[in-house]
Amino acid sequence: MTLSERSLIEHIRKNVASSSVVNGLIKGIGDDCSVFGKSPTGSWLVSTDMLVDRVHFNRKWHPPRLLGRKSIAVNLSDIAAMGGVPRFFLLSVSLPPRMSSEWLFQWLDGVSSMLSEYDCVLIGGDTVTGKEMNISVTVLGEQHPAGVLYRTGAEEGDTIYVSGPLGSSAAGLEILKKNDGDTSHIKNAWEILVKAHLDPIPQVHLGQVLCASGCISAMQDISDGLATDLSHICKESGVRAIIQEQRLPSFPVLDEACETLQLRRLDCILRGGEDYQLVFCVKKGNEKIVEEYVKKSGDFVIYQVGAIEKGHGVFLEDEKGDRQEVTFQGYEHLV
Amino acid sequence: MTLSERSLIEHIRKNVASSSVVNGLIKGIGDDCSVFGKSPTGSWLVSTDMLVDRVHFNRKWHPPRLLGRKSIAVNLSDIAAMGGVPRFFLLSVSLPPRMSSEWLFQWLDGVSSMLSEYDCVLIGGDTVTGKEMNISVTVLGEQHPAGVLYRTGAEEGDTIYVSGPLGSSAAGLEILKKNDGDTSHIKNAWEILVKAHLDPIPQVHLGQVLCASGCISAMQDISDGLATDLSHICKESGVRAIIQEQRLPSFPVLDEACETLQLRRLDCILRGGEDYQLVFCVKKGNEKIVEEYVKKSGDFVIYQVGAIEKGHGVFLEDEKGDRQEVTFQGYEHLV
Repeated sequence: MTLSERSLIEHIRKNVASSSVVNGLIKGIGDDCSVFGKSPTGSWLVSTDMLVDRVHFNRKWHPPRLLGRKSIAVNLSDIAAMGGVPRFFLLSVSLPPRMSSEWLFQWLDGVSSMLSEYDCVLIGGDTVTGKEMNISVTVLGEQHPAGVLYRTGAEEGDTIYVSGPLGSSAAGLEILKKNDGDTSHIKNAWEILVKAHLDPIPQVHLGQVLCASGCISAMQDISDGLATDLSHICKESGVRAIIQEQRLPSFPVLDEACETLQLRRLDCILRGGEDYQLVFCVKKGNEKIVEEYVKKSGDFVIYQVGAIEKGHGVFLEDEKGDRQEVTFQGYEHLV
Repeated sequence: MTLSERSLIEHIRKNVASSSVVNGLIKGIGDDCSVFGKSPTGSWLVSTDMLVDRVHFNRKWHPPRLLGRKSIAVNLSDIAAMGGVPRFFLLSVSLPPRMSSEWLFQWLDGVSSMLSEYDCVLIGGDTVTGKEMNISVTVLGEQHPAGVLYRTGAEEGDTIYVSGPLGSSAAGLEILKKNDGDTSHIKNAWEILVKAHLDPIPQVHLGQVLCASGCISAMQDISDGLATDLSHICKESGVRAIIQEQRLPSFPVLDEACETLQLRRLDCILRGGEDYQLVFCVKKGNEKIVEEYVKKSGDFVIYQVGAIEKGHGVFLEDEKGDRQEVTFQGYEHLV
């Protein structure tokens, strides 16, 4: 008898983990990060991810330096989703016996560049030998002085936003697959999609700005696709999300790439995953305040994509007003 | 060109990690745990380990429940080495596609039992699919109110102690290997050695008692063998350690087992590893105080094994007073 990842996680949640508030634990399993600390204004955020070669990345076409950057970016995005300030990383790696040192040094150079861009420090880790490359990253961050943004606060009447174009990473991955990693002959315009997959930019600074605005009711990063990640907010907040198809942002080149690659644009946007943008809900009536606050805080653009209603589940509304449920039903991560 | 674990770690230490005290970092890479926090009396300890099937354990002979317990114990021991109080765990696991759910549930039951024995909570993790089982564990603990015990404080005249019998785990592993995991016919007396390997007990409570005594200058857990782990204290403190051969504690049955298995008892004790005992230095003149404090604090026995001198390196002194250097020269972990 084998076991699905989902039922294993269910078992862990019920039997092993605890979400109770004990000994300095403020929030256990069930958000982008867990939150702990001894004072409510000085708490710490922690999150961990495991990335396996040929499951989460492919060394064949992922340049080592960019894989190093992405190894860190994925976890920075979890801190961004809580509005936090990333500080420390622990990085463990299992390496097959005959990895080239050139590859490894480039990978570490990528890790290092990302750490330094976000003013973070590597404070621990482990290196071991294994059959396949396995990267385990843990990030620790401080909460923003203004608070911690959870998935739980969305309410009827809130407006849903995303922080940038969606579906890019999924299309970029498909371009890499179709060309077996050789992107030397692809159209210049498509490079933005490939880059979104290979070298994503976590929305750390925007996350902090949104937190500082004081007007966000719920936030989450888009790692598994908008439908999945918004489903988490809906489930945790006990609400329904309506997203309007014509408002969903993407790079203009996505349409053309999807046509050529025989992908459905909407699938890339809703289910593609790995965009590492943020999806967040602005408290009813505060849309203008947040839009202006974000504009004056930096070079950010945010996109209004829908609204929170009573009920549950995520629904996509087309131009005619017809709705279909797109709530995610598949696997989910432990955190 | 391939790369040794040691040179990779050297590269990481020099180019990627930082030991500088920034943004709440109190102690970076270079001890059993890193230490961070915003107040000097309320800091947090963090450590991580990666365990790979057939490298760090063998599913063939490691009962799943005991492997679950050991997955947690290894990290508890790092907290014990700093005198800290373990609080939270993050546990990521890569599972081959056809793991039996029975095996996994037993493994998780072991994880759970160890967490509950030490009053810890699982607050995050990840489950992924891979070719081999890979377990990545991160532990977070609080510092003891009396302070944090580092590797750096040993001074000339201090007395070296260990917390229990050594070499047991190495001999236990050898018994398992020789019997291909079938221990049903081994001598009853040998079971204590096998248990030391399969289900080690981290010295968490003793670590706290030693910290509270206020008389310990340096401490470290014995995960890679006494010679290696004491070498770390010597290097970080800038001192020499002399250990007296006849004082090194081991279970009486170790002699017999070593003879039968054709192992050198001293190799098991000095280089065997995985005993998860503590090695610590008592400040000059405080031996009686510590011994009495430990005795009245619980069911602990500690063993005086040597002394700290000026110089560097670890030396073994035999009954005649002859010394040989046993400083460890091999691999080391990042933390």
